[in-house]
Amino acid sequence: VITLPTLAHGLDLLGVAVFAASGALSAARRGLDLLGVLVIAGVTALGGGTLRDLLLDRHPLFWITNPAYLPVCALAALATLGWIHSRPVPERGLQVADALGLALFTIMGTRIAAGMGLAAVPSVLMGAVTGVAGGLLRDVLCNEVPLVLRRDLYAIPAIAGSSVYLATGGLGLAAPLTIWLGLATVVTLRLLAVFRGWSLPDLSIRGNP
Amino acid sequence: VITLPTLAHGLDLLGVAVFAASGALSAARRGLDLLGVLVIAGVTALGGGTLRDLLLDRHPLFWITNPAYLPVCALAALATLGWIHSRPVPERGLQVADALGLALFTIMGTRIAAGMGLAAVPSVLMGAVTGVAGGLLRDVLCNEVPLVLRRDLYAIPAIAGSSVYLATGGLGLAAPLTIWLGLATVVTLRLLAVFRGWSLPDLSIRGNP
Amino acid sequence: VITLPTLAHGLDLLGVAVFAASGALSAARRGLDLLGVLVIAGVTALGGGTLRDLLLDRHPLFWITNPAYLPVCALAALATLGWIHSRPVPERGLQVADALGLALFTIMGTRIAAGMGLAAVPSVLMGAVTGVAGGLLRDVLCNEVPLVLRRDLYAIPAIAGSSVYLATGGLGLAAPLTIWLGLATVVTLRLLAVFRGWSLPDLSIRGNP
Repeated sequence: VITLPTLAHGLDLLGVAVFAASGALSAARRGLDLLGVLVIAGVTALGGGTLRDLLLDRHPLFWITNPAYLPVCALAALATLGWIHSRPVPERGLQVADALGLALFTIMGTRIAAGMGLAAVPSVLMGAVTGVAGGLLRDVLCNEVPLVLRRDLYAIPAIAGSSVYLATGGLGLAAPLTIWLGLATVVTLRLLAVFRGWSLPDLSIRGNP
Repeated sequence: VITLPTLAHGLDLLGVAVFAASGALSAARRGLDLLGVLVIAGVTALGGGTLRDLLLDRHPLFWITNPAYLPVCALAALATLGWIHSRPVPERGLQVADALGLALFTIMGTRIAAGMGLAAVPSVLMGAVTGVAGGLLRDVLCNEVPLVLRRDLYAIPAIAGSSVYLATGGLGLAAPLTIWLGLATVVTLRLLAVFRGWSLPDLSIRGNP
Repeated sequence: VITLPTLAHGLDLLGVAVFAASGALSAARRGLDLLGVLVIAGVTALGGGTLRDLLLDRHPLFWITNPAYLPVCALAALATLGWIHSRPVPERGLQVADALGLALFTIMGTRIAAGMGLAAVPSVLMGAVTGVAGGLLRDVLCNEVPLVLRRDLYAIPAIAGSSVYLATGGLGLAAPLTIWLGLATVVTLRLLAVFRGWSLPDLSIRGNP
């Protein structure tokens, strides 16, 4: 049988591969060279978990402890480069994959923070940081206002899913079920934002520069 | 009676609220949504102290240890949004508040670093990092050259106040007095820069791109 | 006689001075004031080693432990300012110096990581982070796409030299020799990129924005 830790680790590696692919695609579109593509893929895929580990003082970092992360990251980036030079970019598929990566990282981050005894609000925040910070670092390095600050409903699904995961756990549901409920919440809200245009109200102050 | 630690903690929360308000204002002006406003407010208010704690290896981080920081930050950001949708932005008031926040964070950071046995120069640097890094991270996320690197006399008041705090302590003055002297130095120099235009000479190399 | 640790420490301080000079030059060209020049010089010179220490959980940070780093950094920045106001900027000399700094930081970072028991791939990565991250942080603060992501063969020489250092050590060569071989690899490849235009292929996807 597949144990819960094994499943969680497998899902985490899947999230790394998906985010590395999304980072490699962004980098290739910006005209970076092979090394730049690998760097941006690595930052996108490993940045969120690294920031989480630094903030929580978890050492050695997850990609130092586990030797699989760096090669998975590099292979996913190279496979993405190979794909996009021969076929059109599967935009919809990538957005679904990105939503899945966001969900996997967020629930994993929340799980780690809550397991270290953090209160609910900081645990949700750590989940959101794990899910969102990689893409945010990618955008900062590429000199853009981070999408997460502009594109509506990217961090909100992470916060909602993280809260659902903690709340259902607090109600006494079994761990695997709470994980699936949390993941489903993130993916559902994110895909509603992508394909139905759900968003938050704009709060800009017009005429007041 | 109010003890020194209680006073220091109260002033620290005040600094967080002030910086959260200033971050929320910047974010709203840039047209970010509600979540973006909360993120930028949080980064501005908690970024400097978080970087200080990471550099000094102080764990758990201050906003994980003390549950008041995150709600204070969110409430200050929401109150700011409410205010600016019904009244004009109090520019002068905000700049005075920002100077106060800079002073509070700088002296708090210096105090923590010196209390851990750091030498004077790194302690002053930690004070300046605590005071300045939140605004710097805010500007990086909003894709601007950080104001602290352009606006004259932002870090200088922090460095001067931090040095006054350490020097008067070295001369044997009592802790509360040294804190007030340090705070007064930061606020005075910063307000002279804002309202009198004090600045450092420009060192650019013209005609040598 | 000069022992290996003494030599390594002297080379490390030399690397700090060189990177501080390169950071001060960039900052002065962008019209920053004196404080901005010192901040950018410090970030460029100390940023890579600081990020390495944070990722490896080495505390206190190297510039807190050793009091020489901060003054060396400031003096190198001030000397650079003095020089460029009286003479033309020695472009070629600076690029050679920068290549030397890259080499020194990379091999030092790899040595520290491997000495802590990290596997070869993360050790090479830590070396590259130590060599490259300071310049990357400088570019992010100055609101530019980091040169390391655009200028070809900046991180590649670091990765190659770090690998040569580890591989020759694995073959049983003496430590000083492996250090010199690693340094020579970085400097040679970097100077070939600068003066001969060596680069990696561009992987951008044209016509697919």
